[in-house]
Amino acid sequence: MSHENSLSLEPRWDAAGLITAVTTDAETGDLLMVAHMNADALAATIATGEAHYWSRSRQQLWHKGATSGHIQRIVEMRVDCDQDAIWLKVAPAGPACHTGERSCFYRRLTDGGLVRDAVG
Amino acid sequence: MSHENSLSLEPRWDAAGLITAVTTDAETGDLLMVAHMNADALAATIATGEAHYWSRSRQQLWHKGATSGHIQRIVEMRVDCDQDAIWLKVAPAGPACHTGERSCFYRRLTDGGLVRDAVG
Repeated sequence: MSHENSLSLEPRWDAAGLITAVTTDAETGDLLMVAHMNADALAATIATGEAHYWSRSRQQLWHKGATSGHIQRIVEMRVDCDQDAIWLKVAPAGPACHTGERSCFYRRLTDGGLVRDAVG
Repeated sequence: MSHENSLSLEPRWDAAGLITAVTTDAETGDLLMVAHMNADALAATIATGEAHYWSRSRQQLWHKGATSGHIQRIVEMRVDCDQDAIWLKVAPAGPACHTGERSCFYRRLTDGGLVRDAVG
């Protein structure tokens, strides 16, 4: 059965063993962040109901909010047609961005460059 | 100036020359698809106001909807803190997914596997 029709979770890991994770606020629908997961991060997210990612910069499992307290509780998870991206709808306990912004996408493109413009 | 504070668009291309593109429906907020852009795709998207991606499978510029008619008109674009992901809010003229689904994320994770469950 193809990845498109399969009803079992069979992630298509890239060469680095990762899939893309897209995280939105389950209540507002706003896009909060884009990160990556390896198999351990995905398993930990499913097991705990809290978002875990793979930190490419630190090369380690990253339990979001473990130090900041800004846990992301999983409300729903979805997978895309070719199973190389996963969508997390979360209830965030604080900002998603390390800059302190609620969303990492706090800049909007304009003709002249970027403008700071908080999401939502 | 760091990528986080810069008010100019300075994408952090990966080793393959790509950034991640996350596309949502500007009206409903639903996540439609996750894809990639190279510099040409980003420039074409900005110049035309229609979503262009880089097809990794075909290794070519991909004007979404050029053959299907399912153009994605850009309503807003945002960039994330480290400028390696871009958020497109679009007005879609048809399904985002090649399967005919409105969103590529038509399967939801459950304890027992995946269930088909259309977005929105």
